Amino acid sequence: MHRLEQRIRREAVVKKGNILKVDSFLNHQIDPALLDAIGREFYRLFADADITKIVTIEASGIGVAVMAARYFGVPVVFAKKEKTAQLDDGVYSARIHSFTHDNDYTAVISKQYLSSDDAVLVIDDFLANGEAIRGLRSIIEAAGAKLAGIGIVIEKGFQCGGDALRAEGVRLESLATIDSMDDETGEIIFR
Amino acid sequence: MHRLEQRIRREAVVKKGNILKVDSFLNHQIDPALLDAIGREFYRLFADADITKIVTIEASGIGVAVMAARYFGVPVVFAKKEKTAQLDDGVYSARIHSFTHDNDYTAVISKQYLSSDDAVLVIDDFLANGEAIRGLRSIIEAAGAKLAGIGIVIEKGFQCGGDALRAEGVRLESLATIDSMDDETGEIIFR
Repeated sequence: MHRLEQRIRREAVVKKGNILKVDSFLNHQIDPALLDAIGREFYRLFADADITKIVTIEASGIGVAVMAARYFGVPVVFAKKEKTAQLDDGVYSARIHSFTHDNDYTAVISKQYLSSDDAVLVIDDFLANGEAIRGLRSIIEAAGAKLAGIGIVIEKGFQCGGDALRAEGVRLESLATIDSMDDETGEIIFR
Repeated sequence: MHRLEQRIRREAVVKKGNILKVDSFLNHQIDPALLDAIGREFYRLFADADITKIVTIEASGIGVAVMAARYFGVPVVFAKKEKTAQLDDGVYSARIHSFTHDNDYTAVISKQYLSSDDAVLVIDDFLANGEAIRGLRSIIEAAGAKLAGIGIVIEKGFQCGGDALRAEGVRLESLATIDSMDDETGEIIFR
């Protein structure tokens, strides 16, 4: 998505440890016009997939997911992050490791909001190692729902998550995929 | 807002300790059509206020804020919640007590995204004691920005937060205000 790549090139900050800060338009401050265009693009990519529900994870996935949901006309369910492992009978949960924050958390979705009738589009802002996406997938599978697709705003193509999921046959679309980035020069090369 | 009150009456669950669960359309599962109507209503209420930025707090405020921001044509900045107090020079922060979760956290906004040129509309899903709103207000004041208004989806009118803010002259609009609710009968009475 050209408009998104331009925005990343202009405003993103590359930091040590493969961190890309996009706080000016996506992860802290949000540009609603860009988010609307992103939502529309996800709809274009997955309009044929008979999506019944969009699943994301708090917090920064919510804005993108809600904007996309307007186009699909389906509800969003956002997984909540809990510090401790959940044992509640009423929820599906998955333990997820965050490389960014170097900690573990439990993603939780109430059983009321996912069922075997659902065809789910998972939407998230970033994909790197794919830990969060794999956690959400295990929750979707536990509900007996179908994982119809995954839509990612920015994929770190130099990490393994996206290509591993594609190799497993998952339908995955990233709007911008970064092949390499340099924290000294700030250079970002897209796939 | 009649449509919102109807939805609350039909789907909200009243729990002990003055807790109102609206997980089916606002706080876990999100209905994008309802959120869009909420965003449009906030725009109708504050269209004259020359808003330059919408401020909210993660996580459940983000969806509402982004939908409203589409109508205003301004960016959203969402405060991040940190467990520990922030000492970073680059941020404004406020310590906030959560009665719902009975804990304290620090709300943080980068200095880059708020300035003395901003007229801010604060948007949040709930207002009860007003702790979160007061924290955001102190951050807005620290930035030298103007608090132009506060838009709340559901106000617990039987708690003191909203009326105290109005008594201080703050322009505060709530789309649904609950005068009383009963966790035994499930009855909810709106103002």
